[in-house]
Amino acid sequence: MKAVVVTRDDPTPQVIEIGKPSVSSGEVLVRVLRVGIDGTDHEVIAGNHGGFPAQSEHMVLGHEAVGVVEDGGDTDLTSGQMVVPTVRRPPASGSNEYFKQGQPDMAPAGLYVERGIDGAHGHMAEFVTAPSEFLVPVPDSFREFGFLVEPLSNAVKAIEHAEASRSAFRWAPETAIVLGNGPLGLLALAFLRHKGYSRLYCLGRRDRPDQSIDIIERFGATYVDSRETSLSDLATIHEPMDLVVEATGYARHGVESVRALAPNGVAALLGIPSASTFKLDGGTLHREMVLKNQALVGSVNSHVGHFETAREALTDTPSWFVDQLVTGVFPPHEIEAAFESDRQNIKAVINFEM
Amino acid sequence: MKAVVVTRDDPTPQVIEIGKPSVSSGEVLVRVLRVGIDGTDHEVIAGNHGGFPAQSEHMVLGHEAVGVVEDGGDTDLTSGQMVVPTVRRPPASGSNEYFKQGQPDMAPAGLYVERGIDGAHGHMAEFVTAPSEFLVPVPDSFREFGFLVEPLSNAVKAIEHAEASRSAFRWAPETAIVLGNGPLGLLALAFLRHKGYSRLYCLGRRDRPDQSIDIIERFGATYVDSRETSLSDLATIHEPMDLVVEATGYARHGVESVRALAPNGVAALLGIPSASTFKLDGGTLHREMVLKNQALVGSVNSHVGHFETAREALTDTPSWFVDQLVTGVFPPHEIEAAFESDRQNIKAVINFEM
Repeated sequence: MKAVVVTRDDPTPQVIEIGKPSVSSGEVLVRVLRVGIDGTDHEVIAGNHGGFPAQSEHMVLGHEAVGVVEDGGDTDLTSGQMVVPTVRRPPASGSNEYFKQGQPDMAPAGLYVERGIDGAHGHMAEFVTAPSEFLVPVPDSFREFGFLVEPLSNAVKAIEHAEASRSAFRWAPETAIVLGNGPLGLLALAFLRHKGYSRLYCLGRRDRPDQSIDIIERFGATYVDSRETSLSDLATIHEPMDLVVEATGYARHGVESVRALAPNGVAALLGIPSASTFKLDGGTLHREMVLKNQALVGSVNSHVGHFETAREALTDTPSWFVDQLVTGVFPPHEIEAAFESDRQNIKAVINFEM
Repeated sequence: MKAVVVTRDDPTPQVIEIGKPSVSSGEVLVRVLRVGIDGTDHEVIAGNHGGFPAQSEHMVLGHEAVGVVEDGGDTDLTSGQMVVPTVRRPPASGSNEYFKQGQPDMAPAGLYVERGIDGAHGHMAEFVTAPSEFLVPVPDSFREFGFLVEPLSNAVKAIEHAEASRSAFRWAPETAIVLGNGPLGLLALAFLRHKGYSRLYCLGRRDRPDQSIDIIERFGATYVDSRETSLSDLATIHEPMDLVVEATGYARHGVESVRALAPNGVAALLGIPSASTFKLDGGTLHREMVLKNQALVGSVNSHVGHFETAREALTDTPSWFVDQLVTGVFPPHEIEAAFESDRQNIKAVINFEM
């Protein structure tokens, strides 16, 4: 079967033939339909994040997938069921309490591998296998865009954790800004719309006309150009934000997100920047966070519950959103063009049925 | 009656004679027994925090008080009941939703005044009045140390908010460090002991022999000298911390507290530093907070519920703690010595019965 891989010698994604996986007890064989490409894939390819499976000369890429059950084996899943696989799996040393408690997303480094990212082959192949507990059923209507459930689930978790941080008091958030108008940022925006935030903003640095700005405005949200408006000016130019969702991976946004917050607000961090040293008025940041009861919450990955919430949110999101978000659909043999397109446009996806 | 004040012309605390307050409907007259001195008082005196009541040439100091009801007026409180007053009151513009919902501690600037700190006279006088809703009953046994309920309530709130930030997943914290071995830090340590954290640490920069180190070790906690061990070394030299409670007001601790955290940990900020610019690897801070699901939570002030929790925690704390913590008891006319002692020792208190 065809699989899209990088090798230890060559970081260029390429299609190779590998053996079709066989299912063990408790496992399901999934025929993969589509696999999205995102920033993490680019980081993995560049060698900045994650790592190869042990003793393997190649790694199958891909962690955002939708597929259909080919063989449910001895599980409750039956052939033809549309599914989205989760990303984290137990490490070679075996399962642990995080997996047993259904929260592998909270496992620290060393207690998990990530398919297509860190230590395990990904989903960008004609077939994959997975224990049924790691497969989230989705409706047939998710065939073309179900791969968006995984990235959206990461935003769902980050926002859930951010909101939990405000659960010790009565909090009625109305305003939110997403930092970043890439696919993760736009998915986070769709989720905040679904949750009913009344006034939404999205920060980017693109010139009009631009499809991401069109999406932002079609949601009724306000586009903020970061080249004109800094995060510390946001409160005065627009309004203070109850929630900030950082989805840029820009190092300064980690601390500067607090500058955009209203009293009692919270910023959720999703991006994964590299080391970057800069000057900061940490005294004022600290003082303001205390005097304004503000919080900053980092979040990575997601568990099955977040996938399920993401599924509900996508069901509630107008169909034009997916049509505008997915800017490129490529067959596996056009993998080079797909990765190139993903950098230049909003969202590229590999379609294994093409 | 006697009151300890600062004037707009003279920042030296002094005793003056002012009129005894009279009670309106819903209010209670409290005979003040003891009022503690803390870092905020020093900041107020130095003009770095808070401000005078409008149209007043002086401000009565003090926000950590214990007293006894002298006249319950038409309220449910009766003469002889021991009480601790809260600090925030509605502003001159009138009450607002934060007070109506019982969470004045979450009110943003402008929607509250703070007795003895910002815009309102404090408790450091022979008598004070307060609406009964702002008076927390305490047992008679709290006569000598009930003034500690207020500072402890601030730590209670910060830790409650920090723990709430971890409520979206199963979290079983065991290790905690308090940054700062001043009275607020030691009270926070007492609260963490009461809550059952199994391994406690406290960071300071004092040489032995030292009474604060004695308290830390008598609690079974480990004293960490910040001159020998930095926050980023803490995890390797001792162990990573599930919870960090910052009570130093040192600007760098705002962001560096995260360096001491275990995966899924949270740091609560309580200190109020001034502006301070320094270099920081914000990229790594951001990245680590995301990949380790960590949080940073600022917290100020407290509401009646936190006072009540603080009351329970103090009841559960061995009596030697208070005896060792309160290093100086002064009559009002020795106010200068009291403020001087508070800087040099652990905790000074004014006793209006002396």
